[in-house]
Amino acid sequence: MTKVSVLGVGTTKFGELWEASPRGLVKEAVNEALTDAGLKIKDIDALFVGNMLSGILGSQENLGALFAEELGAQNMPAFKIEGACASGGLAVHNAVNSLLGGSYKTVLVVGIEKMTDHNPAEIAQALMAGGHDEERAAGVTFPGLYAILARAYIEKFGATEGDLAAVAVKNHYHASLNPKAQFPFEITQDQVLKSAPVAEPLKLLDCSPVSDGAAAIILSSNTKAPNSKKTVHIIASSVATDSLGLKGRKDLTTLEAVVIASQKAYRETGIKPADVDVAEVHDCFTIAEIMACEDLGFFAKGNGAKAVSAGKTRLGTGRLVVNTSGGLKACGHPVGATGVKQLCEIVTQLRGEAGKRQVKGAKIGLTHNVGGSGAVAVVHILGNL
Amino acid sequence: MTKVSVLGVGTTKFGELWEASPRGLVKEAVNEALTDAGLKIKDIDALFVGNMLSGILGSQENLGALFAEELGAQNMPAFKIEGACASGGLAVHNAVNSLLGGSYKTVLVVGIEKMTDHNPAEIAQALMAGGHDEERAAGVTFPGLYAILARAYIEKFGATEGDLAAVAVKNHYHASLNPKAQFPFEITQDQVLKSAPVAEPLKLLDCSPVSDGAAAIILSSNTKAPNSKKTVHIIASSVATDSLGLKGRKDLTTLEAVVIASQKAYRETGIKPADVDVAEVHDCFTIAEIMACEDLGFFAKGNGAKAVSAGKTRLGTGRLVVNTSGGLKACGHPVGATGVKQLCEIVTQLRGEAGKRQVKGAKIGLTHNVGGSGAVAVVHILGNL
Repeated sequence: MTKVSVLGVGTTKFGELWEASPRGLVKEAVNEALTDAGLKIKDIDALFVGNMLSGILGSQENLGALFAEELGAQNMPAFKIEGACASGGLAVHNAVNSLLGGSYKTVLVVGIEKMTDHNPAEIAQALMAGGHDEERAAGVTFPGLYAILARAYIEKFGATEGDLAAVAVKNHYHASLNPKAQFPFEITQDQVLKSAPVAEPLKLLDCSPVSDGAAAIILSSNTKAPNSKKTVHIIASSVATDSLGLKGRKDLTTLEAVVIASQKAYRETGIKPADVDVAEVHDCFTIAEIMACEDLGFFAKGNGAKAVSAGKTRLGTGRLVVNTSGGLKACGHPVGATGVKQLCEIVTQLRGEAGKRQVKGAKIGLTHNVGGSGAVAVVHILGNL
Repeated sequence: MTKVSVLGVGTTKFGELWEASPRGLVKEAVNEALTDAGLKIKDIDALFVGNMLSGILGSQENLGALFAEELGAQNMPAFKIEGACASGGLAVHNAVNSLLGGSYKTVLVVGIEKMTDHNPAEIAQALMAGGHDEERAAGVTFPGLYAILARAYIEKFGATEGDLAAVAVKNHYHASLNPKAQFPFEITQDQVLKSAPVAEPLKLLDCSPVSDGAAAIILSSNTKAPNSKKTVHIIASSVATDSLGLKGRKDLTTLEAVVIASQKAYRETGIKPADVDVAEVHDCFTIAEIMACEDLGFFAKGNGAKAVSAGKTRLGTGRLVVNTSGGLKACGHPVGATGVKQLCEIVTQLRGEAGKRQVKGAKIGLTHNVGGSGAVAVVHILGNL
């Protein structure tokens, strides 16, 4: 079983941060994580950067060296890891691997995306770099791809657009308790249902936003970190892929990569879905959270929509609480940062430091980060054990 | 000490491969590596992709999932690793880490770049994504940056343009013995000196070309691989960074990242520079090979130009032979593939399978892969021990 300690976490506020630069966002998140860990940058052995769009939108690659220099760690081993919207989670996975093998003892993972400086058409097109070239050639974008999944799900299982809307309502409620969320306010089901259609059945408020932000986490192979009264461990880090485009999938109501990655993580740890107290899942669209809750084994296939709609994953009413941060929907989705932020939120929960959005007594947490329309999935299980 | 077995290697021909697609190149290199290893794709646990420019030039990211699917390994864990022209070497580094930690037992690394479909100005601009934004804003490209290094070196150590040319002459000689090289023919020093000026003192034949190609290597934590009479091991994998732009450097006649990464590799293995029989170094420009030979400890600082010029690294006359493949200069430089191809060449040498370009009795080999103008360096030491 994987066992890596989390020494520190930090995130910027997510949002339309027009005054901030990528360098500034990274420094802010990293400095918060270093302070949290009681460490200096010189205590870090290597830097893993999760980012998707800096090359396409910003003409800047080589982000490992760039951010190492910016952080005053000019000679530090540093890499960029990319896998579309799963870049952050994949960076954590590669960081965990490097610790388990002893190549490094303490590493920093930072996820970063700066998206809002570009116009929506540019961003939509750039994001499709995570999809299949045939889909791109056909002019489809991610809302369209997830709308296809939503239609398949609704047709097969009889879910309603109101069930989808309930995901957004819940996640906005959670975000209203998270001062770093992009949209820290509640919305109603009626607002979701009456919001502008984007790709039927998905409406504007079914979709995660375009966001800027960074998140950082410091990991160590020292499982008895000196400073941590409440050390949280990563006990599984698991990745699987699937066909890049939807046409390669056997079943449009499940993301097979999520099923495979999560089952491996459960098998390695002996943790069962019912043991999970708090999860951050990749709700890029409301349908994605419903499918995730099923693919991760929280609810039987076809039961996810009604379960979420009934409040079974909502703070205060659910035993398992999903997306306490507000999720991608309401906390925001700076692509490369998302997978790292998910771990930051779970660590905060397992330490009991989540304030108004704390899930009482949370001991086991899970993160679920997806790239493309399900082409790659990363699952981490964390424990306060 | 790191110890990972190389089970198989494969490369496409490098060159202007207008008839080939990135998918086709990857399949060709991987199939050769699988055949070499006596393995099937189902025997592989994870895929590491080294690539720099697919996002910027081809609007395609998520290459891990893309190539996993293309290779018929639709659910395999897969990642893209990027660090400019060091992307291939960094992919190998992360693959090695994953094996040492036991996350995977047998992994595939593939480096790929498809560059020649774009016009030279686009390519030069895209490559500058590996440099500092201030350099990019000033309109400088990599030939200009390396010309600055060449001028500093010539001024400090009294090397001549003829010494630089000797690197190109040697590497073309080696390439003439490598049927997969982009330029498998010899050139004369006079031809180099009379070739068109690019950025003084660098001329056309001091510069590596724009290339297409892919290279694949299969690595395993099983250090007694069943199929291998002549198992080659990776015994060190080391990375360091430096400032992204030249203005952050203390000394323009050395790449500090190379010094740090190589010294770490030597320290970990007990190998000394004088023990190295064959090396593939990152000769993106002729000056880069001279500086590499010094920074790696093969020659004292300031002596590299004359040593290379005197044939001390040439097949047949040198004890240590550098760039038997032809190097980036004459074998070609498909950016993401280069760092992987370097290991393929060293493995071929250490197995004694390099044919006309075989370095007799080679037991210790080294690879040196650089990103940007020295912002990141990866050094691997391999042994047939």
